[in-house]
Amino acid sequence: MDGKIYVVGIGPGDMKSMSVKAIDAIKESGVVIGYQTYLDLISGLYQGKTVVSSGMRKEVERCHRALEYAETGKTVSLISSGDAGVYGMAGLMLEVKSEKKSNVEVEVIPGISAVFSCAALLGAPLMNDFAVISLSDLLTDRKDIINRIICAAKGDFVIALYNPKSAGRQTLIRDAKSIIMRFRKPETPVGIVAQCERDGENTIITTLDKMLENTIDMTTTVIIGNSKTKLIGDKMITPRGYVL
Amino acid sequence: MDGKIYVVGIGPGDMKSMSVKAIDAIKESGVVIGYQTYLDLISGLYQGKTVVSSGMRKEVERCHRALEYAETGKTVSLISSGDAGVYGMAGLMLEVKSEKKSNVEVEVIPGISAVFSCAALLGAPLMNDFAVISLSDLLTDRKDIINRIICAAKGDFVIALYNPKSAGRQTLIRDAKSIIMRFRKPETPVGIVAQCERDGENTIITTLDKMLENTIDMTTTVIIGNSKTKLIGDKMITPRGYVL
Repeated sequence: MDGKIYVVGIGPGDMKSMSVKAIDAIKESGVVIGYQTYLDLISGLYQGKTVVSSGMRKEVERCHRALEYAETGKTVSLISSGDAGVYGMAGLMLEVKSEKKSNVEVEVIPGISAVFSCAALLGAPLMNDFAVISLSDLLTDRKDIINRIICAAKGDFVIALYNPKSAGRQTLIRDAKSIIMRFRKPETPVGIVAQCERDGENTIITTLDKMLENTIDMTTTVIIGNSKTKLIGDKMITPRGYVL
Repeated sequence: MDGKIYVVGIGPGDMKSMSVKAIDAIKESGVVIGYQTYLDLISGLYQGKTVVSSGMRKEVERCHRALEYAETGKTVSLISSGDAGVYGMAGLMLEVKSEKKSNVEVEVIPGISAVFSCAALLGAPLMNDFAVISLSDLLTDRKDIINRIICAAKGDFVIALYNPKSAGRQTLIRDAKSIIMRFRKPETPVGIVAQCERDGENTIITTLDKMLENTIDMTTTVIIGNSKTKLIGDKMITPRGYVL
């Protein structure tokens, strides 16, 4: 008898940001698999279950483990931070299932992606069209990332940058800033959120020309306003154009 | 004594997609304000509360009502479908608060936007960079929408289209298809989800050249793959590039 795999998006960090469906899926599961940092965020939910944790960049291995457990009839929750379908585990799990020609059922349980939680802390910067770009060049060519930044800037999209910087990748965020400066005013509002919904959460609203004066690292999400974005009080807002 | 306003994203339709935080906010509120269709989705949550419903395009009025109640000391939940910050009520509420020079506290409670729930139903089409564009031209100039479609297509973003068509706006979705066809193969996978998480939910995976042969209306979200998106089994997936 085959089991089932839930690929569960748990949101950015606060357990209260999880959906009821996500909590139910984990409760129903006998096995919970995830990156240790994410498992720590939901430790209250997996008492008495088989817990399999693994390190960063072990994503493929985690999918194989999930499949092995499910094929022995277990219900498995494979944990993804944010939304499971945005730079998360959903696609990889479905690819591994197909590669292994497995018939195990895989259900993706969506979650709140960091970009939405960060936006809520900043005000409402995503009220109109937006583009989400990861600056991680581990799996995407740098030239494709640069092209996307140019196109998003030309399209006047509000731009959310995931993984803006890492120990080994310091320059792409500078390139991004330089490119966007060619299309937008220096005073364009920029929101920088570190450790969203986690210990040390920090929210800064600055401007495009000054954005690099702030600490930006792997735990940061950066949201760059478009031509309409403005500061209203201490909030960053992209008005849709309603007459008040 | 001032009250408080929660702008609450309730997700696309299934109450189980709501976050714990969203449910708590509504429970804590004495007043619940929203568009009737959205209030119907959460009717189990507002027994015994003051409920203020209003029709479509009455968004500004709803924000004024929320402020009036909060200024008499009430805690108010202003309901938004999906995520409150994505084409939702969050920005407008903050603008109205500022316009009225009110000191009432406004907290945005994020939710799962339709694009994530639709993506989960389709597979994992958003695993890499994506752009979200509304085809509604009520508040955005048609030329800006067209420019965004061109830029998103050139940038090889996966493209999610909200509000693809309405009774009075039939041609923009055709324009979008023609533009994207200039940059992508005819066989590019396209996912079309109608009534996501609501009665009559329907999921179709088709191709770019054939997408207009399917029913597309106001209740539909359309996700157009990028150059890497493929069908794996019956799922639409944009691989990130992991070695399996």
